[in-house]
Amino acid sequence: MSTELLDLSVTELAPLLERREVSPVELVRQSLARIEALEPQINAYITVTAEQAMADAAAAEQEIAAGHYRGPFHGIPVGLKDLLVTNGVRTTGGSAVLADYVPDFDATTVEKLRAAGAISTGKLGMHEFAYGVTNTNLPFGAVQNPWKLGYIPGGSSGGSGAAVAAGECSIALGSDTGGSIRIPAACCGVVGLMPTYGRVSRYGALALGWSFDHVGPLAKTVRDAALMLGVLAGYDHRDVSTVDLPAPDYTANIDGGVAGLRIGVPRNHFFENLHPEVQSAVEAAIGVLAAQGAHVVEIEVPQVELSPLVGWTIVLAEAASYHEHLLRAHPEKYDPSVRVLLEAGEAISATKYLKAQRLRTVIKESFRAAMEQCDVIATPTLPHPACPHGQETVQCGAVTEPVINALIRCTLPFDVSGQPAIALPCGFTSDGLPISLQLAGRPFDEATICRAAHTYEAATDWHIRTPPLG
Amino acid sequence: MSTELLDLSVTELAPLLERREVSPVELVRQSLARIEALEPQINAYITVTAEQAMADAAAAEQEIAAGHYRGPFHGIPVGLKDLLVTNGVRTTGGSAVLADYVPDFDATTVEKLRAAGAISTGKLGMHEFAYGVTNTNLPFGAVQNPWKLGYIPGGSSGGSGAAVAAGECSIALGSDTGGSIRIPAACCGVVGLMPTYGRVSRYGALALGWSFDHVGPLAKTVRDAALMLGVLAGYDHRDVSTVDLPAPDYTANIDGGVAGLRIGVPRNHFFENLHPEVQSAVEAAIGVLAAQGAHVVEIEVPQVELSPLVGWTIVLAEAASYHEHLLRAHPEKYDPSVRVLLEAGEAISATKYLKAQRLRTVIKESFRAAMEQCDVIATPTLPHPACPHGQETVQCGAVTEPVINALIRCTLPFDVSGQPAIALPCGFTSDGLPISLQLAGRPFDEATICRAAHTYEAATDWHIRTPPLG
Repeated sequence: MSTELLDLSVTELAPLLERREVSPVELVRQSLARIEALEPQINAYITVTAEQAMADAAAAEQEIAAGHYRGPFHGIPVGLKDLLVTNGVRTTGGSAVLADYVPDFDATTVEKLRAAGAISTGKLGMHEFAYGVTNTNLPFGAVQNPWKLGYIPGGSSGGSGAAVAAGECSIALGSDTGGSIRIPAACCGVVGLMPTYGRVSRYGALALGWSFDHVGPLAKTVRDAALMLGVLAGYDHRDVSTVDLPAPDYTANIDGGVAGLRIGVPRNHFFENLHPEVQSAVEAAIGVLAAQGAHVVEIEVPQVELSPLVGWTIVLAEAASYHEHLLRAHPEKYDPSVRVLLEAGEAISATKYLKAQRLRTVIKESFRAAMEQCDVIATPTLPHPACPHGQETVQCGAVTEPVINALIRCTLPFDVSGQPAIALPCGFTSDGLPISLQLAGRPFDEATICRAAHTYEAATDWHIRTPPLG
Repeated sequence: MSTELLDLSVTELAPLLERREVSPVELVRQSLARIEALEPQINAYITVTAEQAMADAAAAEQEIAAGHYRGPFHGIPVGLKDLLVTNGVRTTGGSAVLADYVPDFDATTVEKLRAAGAISTGKLGMHEFAYGVTNTNLPFGAVQNPWKLGYIPGGSSGGSGAAVAAGECSIALGSDTGGSIRIPAACCGVVGLMPTYGRVSRYGALALGWSFDHVGPLAKTVRDAALMLGVLAGYDHRDVSTVDLPAPDYTANIDGGVAGLRIGVPRNHFFENLHPEVQSAVEAAIGVLAAQGAHVVEIEVPQVELSPLVGWTIVLAEAASYHEHLLRAHPEKYDPSVRVLLEAGEAISATKYLKAQRLRTVIKESFRAAMEQCDVIATPTLPHPACPHGQETVQCGAVTEPVINALIRCTLPFDVSGQPAIALPCGFTSDGLPISLQLAGRPFDEATICRAAHTYEAATDWHIRTPPLG
């Protein structure tokens, strides 16, 4: 059965759907066929909603045929991280605790995608409640990296990264608290966009650390991610953290290039102790941006190395608060690795939590000051490529680090600061694992990082490679 | 010595100063003379900066004479709550801990007032660190109520309320965490305006509970308060809570009346168990607004009775965090009543703190929903008039309440919600104590509550009474 439509981006598919050269029914059928073929290897999905997806595809086909084309997501197969609640479809949060939870409403982001005509193929695998530091004991089984089976897809939105990389959906939703969109994007060789804190509603998204949580897209291309952000962005009175600012068209100036753009390279923290192939790929990527006309500026971000202290303290406490009642009711259903973190969170004092929040404002101020000298910050997304499932440490340059520390080292600082960041492929290691570039921008300036990322993507061809599957 | 200029509002003084019919030197001299005459009774000031004030007045006189009139605060004597740091002038926070603290910078609000030409007469008395539940053991002595010596002026900005009521300055700055602007305004028969959280910078204001703290004016008239808010309002990157919204001219439409304005009256919580004279004065005030064309709507604000639980939990924890190092260094210098609260705050867990913050969003949502039915909420500012110093309980209707509970009952809910509220005189008890009306508005809609309050004020004459002082 042919499934080649799944190698196209949303941007490429949309005009074919609009002109009725491709039917949503055929596209969704191919998507479900690929899911069926690859899931035994990849295990990206917790729940596949095949029947509903086919019904929705038929409805979309009719609507488009009747001249009611809704826009670029109409008829597009989308996967949803299983912490986004879905009306009538089980939402597990990747946990046995919620194995039987069938919500009666949609998360705001799900509602918006449905209104845009997108078709959900199902709910994607993740770390239990987006928490925990390994994903070897996941209640619904570990997700595999499409580039190398047996290797981690990154987390917590591992199913989202793997499903997009494997073409099991055209685009997916993930969420990011310490890197959970960008880490799987990096491990799986796709694009992951974490919007500014407050840009996209988390209403109906199970919380991990609510002052850090962001919902955003994992996509095949930067333009696809920018397109989807345009659908997701906006104020929602049901999420008090959302900011009432107009959402621009993030693709409007995406072809504008980077001439004169100042790219800040923070040598401290982000460029220390990198895997040598990551180091050279990211340096080369910065060189590509410079060749396109960007000015490269060396910057310093003081105190950024305190991000893990700040992040862990705050997320431990917020997660413990969020899970307080569920943990009392079903302690035995949590994986012990998650339960111990929740119990540790209950032991944190309010003054320690508040000290971490105050330290956070110091780090935010460091970034704000650094960004007076540049428009975009460029770093590796990960200091090291994906490692095998179960491996506990990695060698990063001169140091041996716990995997979890390495994974969040470069991503967490932007959850701490709340500014937007995008991860995109910038190369492959000699043994075929993706390497990722991270570009971070000023708060609410997602348009600029999308423009810079798209400029890089257009000048290279990493994003058109597909994993060696089936 | 004549001091009658001190009975004029800023609005009345400004054109006299601009036209050089009154000199700042004469105005400040009168202010200092009244301070000298009344302070033995009132004790509103911790520090009087007479010499500097006279020098500043002479400079202002020269500037105005040279044609450089800066606007309505040029040459106006202003008092500053002693938690606002002042360059070169001792800032005690009302505490022995900081008795020798001489800062080398100005708080943003102080800087803005100076830039507007205002002249500081000195630093005003307050509860120790704006905390504590009584002010009988204040390190710098208790402030007296100008309307009745031996009675409380309200707190924590008691010096600000008393100094404005007594004419020891033309207008003053205070701060409000649970009611600390509006309570002294109510006790002292002046106007107190708490702006929206995030509207006015707290940079350089000693914190109590930083997610509740607001800086704002205490004034003789509503128009004066609105004028001063115009000077204070605006984004400040040194206070991350400030919101980057343009600050309108709060007096532009202040004479626009209340025809068609919907006044919401929340019968639950705010109107239960009131002192009978407060009840009838506030009902009459609402009647005055109705007679001016406002529509009176009965509203309900569910969960608002949880405000004290929410407020105390959050402020206890934030205050403990803020004072952590000072309390370790100088435990013996804190008043025991404040120290015990700080130590209690250290015992609060992060999960309890976060539960209070989450409950807070429930209360905010109650207010947001209630304000779909009205434009302004009208309540008493206090359920009971000022009581004697040292009295621990008050009789409010059918119940006997601790004084501190009664004082914050109607004010704290708006610190919890972060929406703006203004307190203004609406009558006097049979034994001559002021009664106060509170009007609260939607976030960032200070203009509407100023307009409603000014309409009330213009239709009555409570604000022109002055206390019976020597």
